[in-house]
Order: sequence, then structure tokens, then C-alpha cells
Amino acid sequence: MSRFMNERYRDLHEYVPGEQPKERRYIKLNTNENPYPPSDAVIRAVREFDAGSLKLYPDPDASVLLKKIAETYGVNPENVIASNGSDDVLSMIFAAFGGNGAAFPDITYGFYTVFASLYDVKYTEIPLRSDYTISPDDYMNVGKLIVIANPNAPTGIALTTDEIERIVRSNPDSVVVIDEAYVDFGAQSAVPLTKKYDNLCVVMTFSKSRSLAGARLGFAVGNEALIRDLYKIKYSTNPYSVNSLTQAIGAAALDSREYYAKNCKKIGKTRDIFADKLRSLGFYVTPSLANFVFARHGTIGGKYLYRSLRQKGILVRRFDTPRIEEFLRITVGTEDDMETLYEALAGIISEAKGERT
Amino acid sequence: MSRFMNERYRDLHEYVPGEQPKERRYIKLNTNENPYPPSDAVIRAVREFDAGSLKLYPDPDASVLLKKIAETYGVNPENVIASNGSDDVLSMIFAAFGGNGAAFPDITYGFYTVFASLYDVKYTEIPLRSDYTISPDDYMNVGKLIVIANPNAPTGIALTTDEIERIVRSNPDSVVVIDEAYVDFGAQSAVPLTKKYDNLCVVMTFSKSRSLAGARLGFAVGNEALIRDLYKIKYSTNPYSVNSLTQAIGAAALDSREYYAKNCKKIGKTRDIFADKLRSLGFYVTPSLANFVFARHGTIGGKYLYRSLRQKGILVRRFDTPRIEEFLRITVGTEDDMETLYEALAGIISEAKGERT
Repeated sequence: MSRFMNERYRDLHEYVPGEQPKERRYIKLNTNENPYPPSDAVIRAVREFDAGSLKLYPDPDASVLLKKIAETYGVNPENVIASNGSDDVLSMIFAAFGGNGAAFPDITYGFYTVFASLYDVKYTEIPLRSDYTISPDDYMNVGKLIVIANPNAPTGIALTTDEIERIVRSNPDSVVVIDEAYVDFGAQSAVPLTKKYDNLCVVMTFSKSRSLAGARLGFAVGNEALIRDLYKIKYSTNPYSVNSLTQAIGAAALDSREYYAKNCKKIGKTRDIFADKLRSLGFYVTPSLANFVFARHGTIGGKYLYRSLRQKGILVRRFDTPRIEEFLRITVGTEDDMETLYEALAGIISEAKGERT
Repeated sequence: MSRFMNERYRDLHEYVPGEQPKERRYIKLNTNENPYPPSDAVIRAVREFDAGSLKLYPDPDASVLLKKIAETYGVNPENVIASNGSDDVLSMIFAAFGGNGAAFPDITYGFYTVFASLYDVKYTEIPLRSDYTISPDDYMNVGKLIVIANPNAPTGIALTTDEIERIVRSNPDSVVVIDEAYVDFGAQSAVPLTKKYDNLCVVMTFSKSRSLAGARLGFAVGNEALIRDLYKIKYSTNPYSVNSLTQAIGAAALDSREYYAKNCKKIGKTRDIFADKLRSLGFYVTPSLANFVFARHGTIGGKYLYRSLRQKGILVRRFDTPRIEEFLRITVGTEDDMETLYEALAGIISEAKGERT
């Protein structure tokens, strides 16, 4: 750290993204990327993009894109704000709505604590139940900004829309954020509830179900006044945060609903088959509705499994977080990827058991 | 504003970017965009980009791009951080280095006060001299984060590297930021000084001289420890802020030095010829080294000129800021654009004078 660093941020623990190693090729199942490419419409949008127009600033309001998002989700463009990935809009949300503090599960997306620290938002971490589910009862009358990933990460476990509605209804004076990064792989979206509740904000991303992690595009949906507040923060940090190409790519992706729905269904099926195979190897696996599984072996440690897989050229993710140190979070790749991973795990486990006898 | 907005930001005045009107076509000389397209290498980089790879996250460290920036500017990759436009890294700078407050000219890029307010950084606005120049003497031993646009906006007037060095040397315990968004059109860059002073941070953008406003790419150069602090803020807000396409485009642009140097020279020449013609129409014009001119007519008001030009389909920019209400900031476009603007202004002025007689 330099001697110039603001004292306020000296103890800030920044987010640590999953590894993006360059030294060798891995089967990369550590950052929840989609194994299938973006749609043909997206590929075409890049190839046919008028690169000469890059000399001009992008539309700061991303009007064409917002109109398409609004149509897709049955809301008005005034209910939507686009951002440079969903982290960007989550950051704005903590700034805008964290005035009375925040509450989120103890085990969830690791960035929430970072945003809270950055904006000096006091936060409460509400423990998951022992089966790693969120108890809606714990979120009644909290009176703070509530942030829930649904499905939750890294557990993959989802709340129902009814459970979310109960939480939203019981906190009328604070904003409830539902981070739906993984919703398209099997859970229900809370977007329809935004018409009924002015304190609900749903965050989504193009990174996962739409295979566009490299393009950086996220958005939030909510009541118009709430969205205007987010614009105020956006225009105080980086008005042109979504570049012209990404706006065009995002709009093209929304024209490919069938293609992406098919991919999501395929990934869900691969996930469920793989989860069962893990169980047959002696793993406890949470009931994930996301594009990853979260699993702990009955006898063999998470760190050992992580390292052994890495040696075999397979990257998964684990967290040094209390209660989940022994878990692996494994992105659902292609059927072939998962078969390779299964064989590798079976080998590691039988070897480890052999050594013990 | 919604009732959920954090009190801290209720009075925040967000930045107002120049208009990007959609209702009709204008000769757009209001946001300092480059009139010439990006280089052929950039156009090719877009067309040949492997859009399938968008399913993966971008390299968060933008290594290939950083290596090229470092080579171009004669520094090491560890001395560079890339950002989503230069506003993004300026925002990080105010967060990281504004702990003891900030100081900048009273007339300068309007975003500095917004960043300062956002991060609760107390700031002093140091008046420009009556000829709109910055007096380096006013920046001796300030002991706060100093931010100077060089050339300054919207005046276009530049400090010499010697003057900047005096400021940097006299403030060893606080960071001096030189915002070089417009440096390539005729001023001298302070980047070489970053090797000598650990408290100097130079900010640049690909938006202006490299015709890439639509791609959103900026960067900062400085001492390694200082750059690491900026990474800490970046990884606490949006680690993947520069998308894959923009990284590829930026790298391609750095391969086209001759093309861009030629454009900058051409724009400088167009600027100087146009400034002289404005003077012949009775304008006071500051000695700009940027890709815009800043001019005030001797007798006709700025708002009237702005509105009359708008009616004729020409957009320029003016600011409701004390001391400069009567000025127009006019982006330097093609020779044809400037000829059209000159004719329009000549017409408006002779008409206005006619009405008075």
C-alpha cells in the first residue's frame, strides 16, 4: 500500500475473483462461465458492428437495449438500468440504499461484504440454516437493505417467489435486492413482483445464462423512483459505463431467447445427473438450481480434492469461509467436462481410500 | 428521488454529460469526439474478434493491453491500471487518495466536484487567473490531492512539464493527478516524471486522440504502490470493468501510432485556423492545445449563440458556471464542419448586429 492511501480504505479486503490462469490450459469449472457460446445473433452483431462509430460516445441511457430488456421482462424502460456487469449495479445499490445498514446471509456472494465496507454500510450476516437454506423468517422486519442471491451462491439453493414476497412485504421501508445472476437455470424470477412493491430491486446479468461474461453487461429492474436513484449514482461515477459494442451485443442476445433457454435446460439436466453421480461417490450435494453444484465429500477434505483436481488440469472453486471450507463449488460445463471431472474425482477418492487401508 | 435514498447522496449533483440527441442529425461539436474513425487495425480487431470467447470472463488484469500501454509509454506494466473510460479511474483516485481533501481549479472538468462529493472528499477550488490560465504558484505546498487537467478543460490551456514538476515536487506527501485526456493534440505529457516522483499519477483516455469514445477505455500511470492502491479500489467495485472486446480494441489502437499522430496534427491545424477565424469575427479565444476551442464573443451572449447554432443544426457546449457563462466550447471537427460552423456564426452575428442598428 502507498503512504497516500485513504485511511478509510486501508483495511478494506477487496474481492478475489476466481483464478483466470494463463500458464496452462485447464478444464475451467471455477467461475461459473457458460460452456456454450453466445448465440449466432450475438456473433453476427460483433462481426457486423460499425466499428467506425466507436469514435462517438455510447448512448449513456442505452435506450435500444433498455427497450428490449423491458419488453423481455414485461416492464417499462424506466424500470431498468444497465450496468457494466451486475457487480457494477450492485455497487450502486449499496451506495444508494445502504443508509440504514444492510443484511444478507452469512454464506453468499463474497462481494456483498466488500461493497458494504467500501460505502461504510454496517452489515449483519444472517446465518443460513444447518442445511444451507435461507430461512425467510430471519428476514422479517429487518429495516435495512436486504440482499439475497436467488438462487444463493455458492449453495445454488433457491427461495420460491412466495417466500421472497413475504420478505419484501415485511420490509416496506427498506429496499430488498434479489440478485438473480443464476435464476435462468431453474429458479423463479421475482421481476413480476416489482410492479407490486416499490421496495423490490431485481439484479440480473448477461454473464451466465446468456454466455456473455466477456461483454460485461448487467441490469437492475425496479420501481421508477428507485431506478432513478441508481442513475444518480451512475452519473456520479461513470455515465458511459456500458460501451457501444456491449449495448449492441446485449440487444442481439435478447433476440435469441429459444437458443439460450435450450442451453439453460441442457445445463440443468447435466447438473442434476452430475449431482447424482457425486452422491454415488459419497458427496453431500446441495439441491442446486444454478449452473454449479456445491458439494462436500463425506471423508475427504475440500482442500485436498481441490488441489488434486488442479494437478489433473481441472479447476474448481473453494472458499476459506467458516462452515463451507470442505465444499467444492463446481461449475456445470459440457457433459464431456463433467464426465472427465467425475472420472478424476473417482480416481482421487479411490486412491485416497487405498492409502488409508 | 425514492424514500430509500441514502441521506449522504440526497444532495449529490451528478455530472451532466453533453447532449447525445436522437431526434435529429446535428453537426456534433459538443462532446469533444474525434471526427476521424479509429484506425484500420481497430476495425480489423472488431471484425476478427472471436465472439465465441465472450462466454468467458475477460482477463481482469488486461495483461496484453497493459504490456502494450507500458511499451508505448516507456514504463512497466506494474505502473499501469486500465479502466472503463478515464472517468472510472478518476473515480478510484478520488476514493483512494482524497483522504486529506482535494484541490483543483475553479474552472475545469466538471466531474471532479462530483467525485469529491461522492466520496466525501472536502475540496478547494483554486481560481484560474483572469486570463483563464492556471498559476502553478497557487499549487505549492497544498498538502491535498491535486487534480489538474492538462490541457485544462474547457479552456484548452496547457501547463509545461516544468510547471507540473514544480507542483509535484512541492507536494511530496500527497498525490498530484494530471488528467491528460487532451494531451495528444499539442501539449507535453508528464508520464516521464512518474519515474522520478512517487506521488504523480497521470490519467489518459483512448476516447479522444484514438477515436474510441464508444469503446470506453482509460488508464492511469504511476508508481507501482500507487497503482496497487487503485487496484484495491477496482477490486472492491468492479474487477472485470474492461471487457474482452475493449481490451482487444485498445491493444490494436496502440499499433497505429502514425495514423493517430497524423489525425492529431490535422486536428491541431484545423483548430488553429478556426481559432483565428473566430477572432476575425470578434471572439476572444483562449490559446487551446486541445481538440476544442473556448471562445466568447465581444458583444453577443453565449446562450444566444448556443441556441442559434442549435437551430441551425450545430451542437456546441456551454456551461452555466460563473466566469464562463458567455463562452462556447467548440469541438474541433473536420475542416468542412468548421467551415459550416464559421459560416453559421458569421450569419448569426451579422444578423444580430443588423437588428441593433
